[in-house]
Amino acid sequence: MPVLTLLTDFGLADYYVAAVKGTVLRLAPGATIVDVSHEVAAGDRLAGAFLLAAAVPWFPDGTVHLAVVDPGVGSSRRILAARLAAPVTGWAVLPDNGLLTLLLDRGHVGEIRSVERDDLFLPGPGSTFHGRDRFAPVAAFLLRGEDAAALGPAIDDPVRLPIEPPRRAGDGVDGVDGRVVHIDRYGNLVTDIPASWLEDGSCAEIAGRTVERRATHYAEIPPGEAAMLPGSLGTIELSLRGDDLARRWKVHRGARVRISRTGPRETA
Amino acid sequence: MPVLTLLTDFGLADYYVAAVKGTVLRLAPGATIVDVSHEVAAGDRLAGAFLLAAAVPWFPDGTVHLAVVDPGVGSSRRILAARLAAPVTGWAVLPDNGLLTLLLDRGHVGEIRSVERDDLFLPGPGSTFHGRDRFAPVAAFLLRGEDAAALGPAIDDPVRLPIEPPRRAGDGVDGVDGRVVHIDRYGNLVTDIPASWLEDGSCAEIAGRTVERRATHYAEIPPGEAAMLPGSLGTIELSLRGDDLARRWKVHRGARVRISRTGPRETA
Amino acid sequence: MPVLTLLTDFGLADYYVAAVKGTVLRLAPGATIVDVSHEVAAGDRLAGAFLLAAAVPWFPDGTVHLAVVDPGVGSSRRILAARLAAPVTGWAVLPDNGLLTLLLDRGHVGEIRSVERDDLFLPGPGSTFHGRDRFAPVAAFLLRGEDAAALGPAIDDPVRLPIEPPRRAGDGVDGVDGRVVHIDRYGNLVTDIPASWLEDGSCAEIAGRTVERRATHYAEIPPGEAAMLPGSLGTIELSLRGDDLARRWKVHRGARVRISRTGPRETA
Repeated sequence: MPVLTLLTDFGLADYYVAAVKGTVLRLAPGATIVDVSHEVAAGDRLAGAFLLAAAVPWFPDGTVHLAVVDPGVGSSRRILAARLAAPVTGWAVLPDNGLLTLLLDRGHVGEIRSVERDDLFLPGPGSTFHGRDRFAPVAAFLLRGEDAAALGPAIDDPVRLPIEPPRRAGDGVDGVDGRVVHIDRYGNLVTDIPASWLEDGSCAEIAGRTVERRATHYAEIPPGEAAMLPGSLGTIELSLRGDDLARRWKVHRGARVRISRTGPRETA
Repeated sequence: MPVLTLLTDFGLADYYVAAVKGTVLRLAPGATIVDVSHEVAAGDRLAGAFLLAAAVPWFPDGTVHLAVVDPGVGSSRRILAARLAAPVTGWAVLPDNGLLTLLLDRGHVGEIRSVERDDLFLPGPGSTFHGRDRFAPVAAFLLRGEDAAALGPAIDDPVRLPIEPPRRAGDGVDGVDGRVVHIDRYGNLVTDIPASWLEDGSCAEIAGRTVERRATHYAEIPPGEAAMLPGSLGTIELSLRGDDLARRWKVHRGARVRISRTGPRETA
Repeated sequence: MPVLTLLTDFGLADYYVAAVKGTVLRLAPGATIVDVSHEVAAGDRLAGAFLLAAAVPWFPDGTVHLAVVDPGVGSSRRILAARLAAPVTGWAVLPDNGLLTLLLDRGHVGEIRSVERDDLFLPGPGSTFHGRDRFAPVAAFLLRGEDAAALGPAIDDPVRLPIEPPRRAGDGVDGVDGRVVHIDRYGNLVTDIPASWLEDGSCAEIAGRTVERRATHYAEIPPGEAAMLPGSLGTIELSLRGDDLARRWKVHRGARVRISRTGPRETA
């Protein structure tokens, strides 16, 4: 029985996560279930898309990833089962609301099915908990190794979130232009700028400040100083040694990060 | 080996949850353990009773549900093993302090045993952690499929929390009278009023406000508006689109909800 | 396949815990993974050492305990695999930064290997996530039952945190002198003073207050009163009935606790 991962905005104080897991275990006995996170902010599809794409590559081939950040629950939005093609095989089961965007952008997705098998769905009370009544049965179906083609028609128009990719010289910018796509527990800023784009002598501008220092790991940064590092997802990370950079510098997700070779420019 | 669920007020920052799980895995190797929640407020038996009753129906037959919200730990309060009869089979293992109330009220409980097998209990240090030293061994006993009759005598007087059921016309009220029994992560108000009691044209009064709108799912509610919905437990839920209703309207668990057919009444 | 426990300061909102678990499941399929806690404050090795030593004794023989509170990630600090000798067998896999201190102090550790098998490590992006790229593969190696001697040379100089043990008469103090080593979710103060050191008629002094009452369990303490109890780890605990003692009395981890037989002394 393959592994199931679970990523939601349900939090850990309600019965919601347990009801999904119980349903999966009823329909796919013996499944190994791993939580990715349930602390996605309510309805934050962008955060869900980021965490899903961050977690997928590290799981065994064949893993089924169930992601339920679903403000449109109960509406006519589609339920998707997306075959993962690279770098690992498996499935993502999720609402068609953009959660798949980053996996799509990275070329990790093969065929996508729109699930139209009402007979699989459970007649749970109400229409507000598809995680339990619809997504869990679909995940269990795939965990049991049943034929995904039977879930519904292949589609090629999944909803995508409008995510602006980072740009560099040649893309019409001077230097490199990217964004903070995640702030982690330590207050490190994870950007979308590939670490391989960083050239010697360049510095980062963020929130009106300039970071010139480079490091390969946190302990190498002098206390109280900030630096750029190649982060755990292959992108540039900004970190403040011994402190929470995001809180200290008041940086939010989405903040623009500029990298230039010629020293800091004025920031408006 | 059946599934074990775990519901406590231990939080996730201490070693307590792990010590219970380790003990279960020592005594019932191979058990699949699922967390319901560990975020029950310290000693809040009513919240524990709600979450337990909410989670139980979704698990496989034979699941053992261990619930430890136990301010009386170490005292002479009994330890109960309650056979679950409907809608799914299994066991609830818990202190005799009212945690079983809602499962009892719903007719989900068959025989109840008072556990009096000192030989099963572990001689852990102190008398403050029966979750580890007493409840876990009892849960492991049931997980191993041993004979529950050997745990102790059947009892018929479990402690019940004084939970007032919702009332409707015929129960001496005009319209329907119920309460908020849970506030979920999104700020939705879960009431104890069966969704089937809702009649056409009726409206809800809560915290001095009136809700007339009906919906079947959240996305159907206009932004900034509130509505009544049939929730995931079969009861009426109140939700404010795009906001946390409980916080915005300052509603707490236990708040009274009135439903009338004849338009809003004055609320004192 | 033995059990793996996981103790980190990663929090539950990031993809970090999932990436470690996915990596373990790729390299040691079928492992049962149990979280100890991921809520250790960022970089708090002392808290990590406490929770690790608290959790270990309750797990099955052969369990592999992976502890990653690792502010020196990416530096040349060693990675250790420590064989657990008592009271249960198994392994602890952790950075050489003091996390092992309390297990060492208690004599629970046998041979310690410095892991020097670069071929086991994964070439993950960056050098900031050894939990995923280095510790997880080592844990999987041990979970698969491979020969620990092949991990690297035995060492006898693990880093130790400077933890002052509790003292009593004969150790140069009058009465007993100890510290608050943990504050739990309920606000109870866990001290390092063995419960067996407590003599009749003695009282505790903490934060300028005196506690004379003794109890064996919380419910026995009169509401609003504080008492000393033998706690779940075999040491003295201080608890305030129906309240959070640490918050109410403004006590922090590390606070000194004095126990005297002759009534309270003046506290500076």
